[in-house]
Amino acid sequence: MYLENIQSPVDVKKLPVEALAVLAEEMRAALLKKLSAHGGHFGPNLGLAEATVALHYVFNSPTDKIVYDVSHQTYCHKMLTGRKDAFLDPEKYDDVSGYSNPQESAHDFFTIGHTSTSVSLACGLAKARDLKGGTENIIAVIGDGSLSGGEALEGLDFASELHSNLIIVVNDNQMSIAENHGGLYENLKLLRDTDGKAECNLFKSFGLDYVFVKDGNNVAELIHAFASVKNSNHPTVVHICTQKGKGFLPAETDKESWHWCMPFDPETGAPKFTPVGEDYSEITAQYLLKKMKEDKTVVAIASGVPAVLGFNEARRKQAGGQFVDVGIAEETAVALASGIAANGGKPVYGTYSTFLQRTFDQLSQDLCVNNNPATILVFSASIYGMNDVTHLGIYDIPMISNIPNLVYLAPTTKEEYLAMLDWSVEQQEHPVVIRVPGAEVISDGKAAKTDYSDLNRFTVTQSGSKTAILALGTFYPLGKRTAEKIQAETGVQPTLINPQFVSGLDEELLRALAKTHDTVITLEDGILNGGFGEKVARFYGSTPVRVLNYGYKKEFLDRYNVEDVLRENRLTPEQIAEDVKNLK
Amino acid sequence: MYLENIQSPVDVKKLPVEALAVLAEEMRAALLKKLSAHGGHFGPNLGLAEATVALHYVFNSPTDKIVYDVSHQTYCHKMLTGRKDAFLDPEKYDDVSGYSNPQESAHDFFTIGHTSTSVSLACGLAKARDLKGGTENIIAVIGDGSLSGGEALEGLDFASELHSNLIIVVNDNQMSIAENHGGLYENLKLLRDTDGKAECNLFKSFGLDYVFVKDGNNVAELIHAFASVKNSNHPTVVHICTQKGKGFLPAETDKESWHWCMPFDPETGAPKFTPVGEDYSEITAQYLLKKMKEDKTVVAIASGVPAVLGFNEARRKQAGGQFVDVGIAEETAVALASGIAANGGKPVYGTYSTFLQRTFDQLSQDLCVNNNPATILVFSASIYGMNDVTHLGIYDIPMISNIPNLVYLAPTTKEEYLAMLDWSVEQQEHPVVIRVPGAEVISDGKAAKTDYSDLNRFTVTQSGSKTAILALGTFYPLGKRTAEKIQAETGVQPTLINPQFVSGLDEELLRALAKTHDTVITLEDGILNGGFGEKVARFYGSTPVRVLNYGYKKEFLDRYNVEDVLRENRLTPEQIAEDVKNLK
Repeated sequence: MYLENIQSPVDVKKLPVEALAVLAEEMRAALLKKLSAHGGHFGPNLGLAEATVALHYVFNSPTDKIVYDVSHQTYCHKMLTGRKDAFLDPEKYDDVSGYSNPQESAHDFFTIGHTSTSVSLACGLAKARDLKGGTENIIAVIGDGSLSGGEALEGLDFASELHSNLIIVVNDNQMSIAENHGGLYENLKLLRDTDGKAECNLFKSFGLDYVFVKDGNNVAELIHAFASVKNSNHPTVVHICTQKGKGFLPAETDKESWHWCMPFDPETGAPKFTPVGEDYSEITAQYLLKKMKEDKTVVAIASGVPAVLGFNEARRKQAGGQFVDVGIAEETAVALASGIAANGGKPVYGTYSTFLQRTFDQLSQDLCVNNNPATILVFSASIYGMNDVTHLGIYDIPMISNIPNLVYLAPTTKEEYLAMLDWSVEQQEHPVVIRVPGAEVISDGKAAKTDYSDLNRFTVTQSGSKTAILALGTFYPLGKRTAEKIQAETGVQPTLINPQFVSGLDEELLRALAKTHDTVITLEDGILNGGFGEKVARFYGSTPVRVLNYGYKKEFLDRYNVEDVLRENRLTPEQIAEDVKNLK
Repeated sequence: MYLENIQSPVDVKKLPVEALAVLAEEMRAALLKKLSAHGGHFGPNLGLAEATVALHYVFNSPTDKIVYDVSHQTYCHKMLTGRKDAFLDPEKYDDVSGYSNPQESAHDFFTIGHTSTSVSLACGLAKARDLKGGTENIIAVIGDGSLSGGEALEGLDFASELHSNLIIVVNDNQMSIAENHGGLYENLKLLRDTDGKAECNLFKSFGLDYVFVKDGNNVAELIHAFASVKNSNHPTVVHICTQKGKGFLPAETDKESWHWCMPFDPETGAPKFTPVGEDYSEITAQYLLKKMKEDKTVVAIASGVPAVLGFNEARRKQAGGQFVDVGIAEETAVALASGIAANGGKPVYGTYSTFLQRTFDQLSQDLCVNNNPATILVFSASIYGMNDVTHLGIYDIPMISNIPNLVYLAPTTKEEYLAMLDWSVEQQEHPVVIRVPGAEVISDGKAAKTDYSDLNRFTVTQSGSKTAILALGTFYPLGKRTAEKIQAETGVQPTLINPQFVSGLDEELLRALAKTHDTVITLEDGILNGGFGEKVARFYGSTPVRVLNYGYKKEFLDRYNVEDVLRENRLTPEQIAEDVKNLK
């Protein structure tokens, strides 16, 4: 086995060329073994084995610097840069993160998890090299799915201004997570069909030189192409055509499902665990499909992750023109939603909290300055969401709730979510964002309020005295348990409130509370800084009411344990009750 | 005069074709007269007179819908859509805003002030039309300078997915505010040089149909082209070549200076007012040019507005490779800065507060997750900045200061600004954003602290008791006046504090204050929601200390008077002193 002896890229260079394809196959076998037991990004890594070998054969990492876009396809890179044990030894599977990580290795230059950033980041490395008089190669490796993102296109446009060495490897596997969307993919097809010879060439129109590699899973072809551009004095695109999911038939066949995997049977591909219970993506898809039938102006919008709205391929077909996947292009998704709403349609855009960050200005300017009634659904906006540092969902409250005109809602149950969603789709007054609950689906069968047009009205779910608990969205159950704990300890029943609105305060209710309560507690499933609780603290700042805000401290968490984070931030009923008791 | 009789586009259609060029000249004369007295966007409007006439001659606005990118070139559109008096009658000059505005006219569909949004917004209008079974034309008018922005490129890529009518007019005047940057401009040149016939065509590579208009200031040519694409069933780009500043020699010659104008002599072009005193752009350029000479790794970055850093053409030449204008591409600007810092360079990126919004995710992910030591300067982050709704500078504190790892500094004087800037450029620990003061430059000659590495240390500038005032950045002088007022009224000297840090609290100092103060006042030149003051309110929430937060309420202001806004938000020393007195 070659792989076992690879301590660094130097060892790759020592191998005879004919051994390199074998090494790539060994890496694929290691991927199949690890990921079938552990889960992770599957298809993207299987397809990039040969290219990774060729890159490390031709270039001299880490002097030459390779920046991987999204960086979920760096598993093979990690195997060749001193981290093979994390793929070969089951006990060490968790020794590496799922993304490039400078803390792990000198061969990694950035922690990256969002798409479309590699070209611009690599331009920065190249610019610094030029200022310092260096001569190393700078290489960006970007998948075709990432090309549609604004930052990637900006980067491709800017790159030629460097007038110096930059190599952009475009890994064309004809897929985003789902199928690709956007006109540029027709151009990639034209280039594939003409062996890269078509005159109409997106990359050349950005002023970039261009090299085509027909078989991006052929190590010799790749080595030839990379060697031809090594040390070049101007930016060049190397367009390589690879097969996503290569070497594992189920993943070659159903590329969308195998983009990322949970543990599975390596023989059959059957998942080892089947998800139990409802989930909000499924609930959303069912609602939207029904609504679309009733109203032809309802349209669902995704930005490269249709699964977040529960729209698998069959449902996308069913929805027809009432479902739009803009590709990875969140800015366009929000602008599109605003434009649809401005012209009388009823758009519902859904994405993850962490990706909504990519379109902050469009939320503010394209949508909220214009006050258009679009609906946006934010998923994984919770400590219970994705837990790696580049996909955290705990920053959206400060980002979203402080934009004027925007109504940010936080439902606590399935019933409340559906009521808010339907209200939002039908109303014509406000841009509305709904923070889809983050933990398991709670369905209490209770009919929720159907009209949210009287903004910022909180609901008192339990009347009490002395202490009031404002428990937002996902943390409503925590609020309930905290109320029980305080009552058990003090004998006094606290007031429990479901605020429902994140973006404004029920000042009338807060004023009334002050008459019979001396302490107000806020609970939010997000960072405290700039969040909901601080607004309550400001409201009561000039009064004798004591305010205790609970949420997370401002930090970048990485691969955390939820219970640890909750405890560290004193987010257990016991800790909160203790804090209340200790108030002087 | 034709213009006087134009009440709506219907009247344009009634004119003989040979009168249309005359109408365009009349509009230009009106622009020269109004803008020489009033100021405004000059060059962009002069160049687009004929195209605006032709659009309204061929299409049926407002049934057909025209979306103008940035929309600072809509003056002629306003003249032809019932708003001519605002350009002909000096008493009515202020009746219209400087941007498209649905509240003014049914011919305007969005309030737009940021670039690069028109194609995606127009896609939304078109999608809603298709859902509703409409047949109107949807037209986006986008300047070449706006093409480099990520949202515009995303929109061009997505547009072909509509498979229905969309007309994208690319107004190619070979300029952004300054010269264009990016590889795509070479492609536009190739297209101009070949009368649009070159096979390598950016727009075609995005799957769009393409029509070329050699003389975009020739009404007949424009009418012919627009008529040829009217009612087409697929997205088409109409590439028109126009002359920025057309008809006014100084503006034709020096396009950058005449992009926007203050009042000037219409005979000579000489400005009527010369700015007095220093400004922070000038101070920044002088610092950076000196620093660049001393250290070849220092590099200044602009994103289409080099003037914000004081880098006019001569200085750009002087800086050579140490100055980079990425064009309108804020996302790439931040990623570039992060990449440069990661590879040992010292980048300083500068832009306006309102435009920094366009790169929120890059601040968070590309820069702060990676904790790279780049410096970002935020200008016009103040109520004293630009005052139209799309360019407000009062939202950056919640946006920026709640990102982990980021150090947000607010200097109060020139000396402090330069000390912070130099510290930031030299340090290697943190991404740093500096909120350049917003009102006039204050230079007190006092040497400022030179080391800010002990984060979140506030400076007590006046020791007192009972009341403490935390007066941030631009509002430090207001804090001083407020302290004087309170002392005059109560006889007790308040404590005055210059926090310097926006992104964190000096908890030690705040704890000490609580021993001798019962009231803490915070002053910030930004919205209160998610801001600095709320963090102070949270800190003291569990204590008896009363906190009064001053800043602006969360709303979209438009063309406001500063003194009115300050008074409405109780931001005068008298009002604050009164509030303190009224505390129970």
